Amino acid sequence: MNHFELLGRDGNARTGRLTTPHGVVRTPAFMPVGTAGAMKGVHWRDVREAGSDIVLGNTYHLMLRPGAERIAALGGLQKFTGWNGPMLTDSGGFQVMSLAQLRKVDERAVTFRSHIDGAALELSPERAVEVQLLLGSDIAMQLDECVRLPAEHGDIERAMQLSLRWGERCKRAFEAAGEGYMLFGIAQGGDIGELRRASARGLVETGFQGYAIGGLAVGEPQSVMLAMIEEVAPILPEDRPRYLMGVGTPEDLIESVARGIDMFDCVMPTRNGRHGVAFTRLGPINLRNARHVDDPRPLDEESNWPATRSYSRAYLHHLVKSGETLGGMLLSEINVAYYQQLMADMRHAIAQGTFADFRERTRAGWAKGDIAPR
Amino acid sequence: MNHFELLGRDGNARTGRLTTPHGVVRTPAFMPVGTAGAMKGVHWRDVREAGSDIVLGNTYHLMLRPGAERIAALGGLQKFTGWNGPMLTDSGGFQVMSLAQLRKVDERAVTFRSHIDGAALELSPERAVEVQLLLGSDIAMQLDECVRLPAEHGDIERAMQLSLRWGERCKRAFEAAGEGYMLFGIAQGGDIGELRRASARGLVETGFQGYAIGGLAVGEPQSVMLAMIEEVAPILPEDRPRYLMGVGTPEDLIESVARGIDMFDCVMPTRNGRHGVAFTRLGPINLRNARHVDDPRPLDEESNWPATRSYSRAYLHHLVKSGETLGGMLLSEINVAYYQQLMADMRHAIAQGTFADFRERTRAGWAKGDIAPR
Repeated sequence: MNHFELLGRDGNARTGRLTTPHGVVRTPAFMPVGTAGAMKGVHWRDVREAGSDIVLGNTYHLMLRPGAERIAALGGLQKFTGWNGPMLTDSGGFQVMSLAQLRKVDERAVTFRSHIDGAALELSPERAVEVQLLLGSDIAMQLDECVRLPAEHGDIERAMQLSLRWGERCKRAFEAAGEGYMLFGIAQGGDIGELRRASARGLVETGFQGYAIGGLAVGEPQSVMLAMIEEVAPILPEDRPRYLMGVGTPEDLIESVARGIDMFDCVMPTRNGRHGVAFTRLGPINLRNARHVDDPRPLDEESNWPATRSYSRAYLHHLVKSGETLGGMLLSEINVAYYQQLMADMRHAIAQGTFADFRERTRAGWAKGDIAPR
Repeated sequence: MNHFELLGRDGNARTGRLTTPHGVVRTPAFMPVGTAGAMKGVHWRDVREAGSDIVLGNTYHLMLRPGAERIAALGGLQKFTGWNGPMLTDSGGFQVMSLAQLRKVDERAVTFRSHIDGAALELSPERAVEVQLLLGSDIAMQLDECVRLPAEHGDIERAMQLSLRWGERCKRAFEAAGEGYMLFGIAQGGDIGELRRASARGLVETGFQGYAIGGLAVGEPQSVMLAMIEEVAPILPEDRPRYLMGVGTPEDLIESVARGIDMFDCVMPTRNGRHGVAFTRLGPINLRNARHVDDPRPLDEESNWPATRSYSRAYLHHLVKSGETLGGMLLSEINVAYYQQLMADMRHAIAQGTFADFRERTRAGWAKGDIAPR
């Protein structure tokens, strides 16, 4: 059964709705990242009020602490965290590669040591699915191997082929899932168009509820990322959601939506918020900059988000400079709200058939930059 | 003109209302501490919703960064921070003593170096008042000298006498204040009853809108603190609010209210929250404790505060153990809400003439301790 309904198209951009056991996700959708069962510095109610339909949890973090079996015993991720909406979890693979120690990949599984306590662990495709079923994720991701770029053609191809085989094993393991739960496959293939296409074709042959593009936003130029989307998207079935993992800046989002992507996740809104940067209609604004010290104006007086149009730049600057937690809290929610406003505006423009115009106006706003200092 | 109205008494405990330029404060009142213009980890709307009528700002921090003149130019503390309610500021003296470097006290002023950038600064009684007027504090505090205990009789007496003279100078400087703004005097005298009484008599002779007891909650036993309140309270005029500075635990509050105190401030709810401790009807609960790891029960299912009765102990334990910001955020608001519930309950009990019973029941609840693990 397909849970994705395509509601409109405008060029290659799409808008739709994805129905999960915990609610409906309007696409294009941005998923804020609640790494270890919590959004950094943002209350769940504000994540929701900012317009988020779905959030992402990191399987790697959650399986190490507090543990998937424990979360299952406590009623699953939604009950555990208090986020009463759709949740997607990654497979844990990406963070095993980036955080764990002494990792070793073979056909059967990836073995590694926990970065928390050094415990020896392994993650097989079957265990990755089992963990995500225990967590109660609405959308689970297949285990894959993501190669750091730049890499040799042979290494990229080997990892891509392994990911395809792991995808099949994940699909079999996922047969235990309840009605309405979804498993997405992940296309790999680095920055090589031919391998990306082969990966996408292999996934489609296996058949998933949705398709992700992985292994991008790892430092390559935006042009490479967009080129890879253009390789993969035409191969994917129209009636399934397409998820670009770990992306990105507001500009990445708009350009990827223009190429047919439906879902995104990224730590950028919260991470950059903690570091004093606000994303706005006027482009990114660095609140550490001394130009804000006496500025009574809000970040953007036209914003729909209360904190964006009410707190002065002078106050936000002060909080950031003083290292006050509230600074990171406010900028994180301001950024999540901006991302969600951007998604809502894109959905609206696609439905109206005015996406090209919206894209141009939005990019022009960013290019124009911040209001003049005073 | 007097802005304090005594509405009820029960034994020595009092309940009343204090009218400030930015709103009414119900007493006994607890003031959460927003050190540098922000509550650590708690949004202003939650500070308000938790039942706070008034908050405290630290003059020392604010005068160093962003600066009193700057805050004045931005419209004062309320406009600057977005806390649209009564605000009390301390004089800066206490933190000059505890945080600044190379401090030197003489008759005229205290000179010191900023702990932020080492700048040479001075704080006189006149400047302390000027700064607080610039900040727009509803309630300003006189500059005083607080001696670290234990100390010699002679040193305590000298600082107490100096504080009385500084109090007179502050009062003269405060004549510039607008209608409705208040200046409180501060009784010093360490742990010596005779000096505490002399200090209180001297302050009353000068005449203030309210009277504080300073230099306590600095490590002395609770019995000494309560004994000092008993020395001072009978000397203070009935029709003025009495503020015990920097106090304290829930038990300190209830015992001090029993002895006639009307106002308190303390960093404990937010600081202990950041360190994983919740204050509850069942006494303090350390969420770091492994007993909570699998416990699906909330901290207190009978609490009026949503976070206290909805989030599981298992989740709070996980957040604290994982160092997630949300853990400190939730426990801080839970603690502020508990403190404010305690104040509301005390106000109600005093008005009903049932304070002794309330005090006994509340202490019994704390003594009984947390629910049994499971």
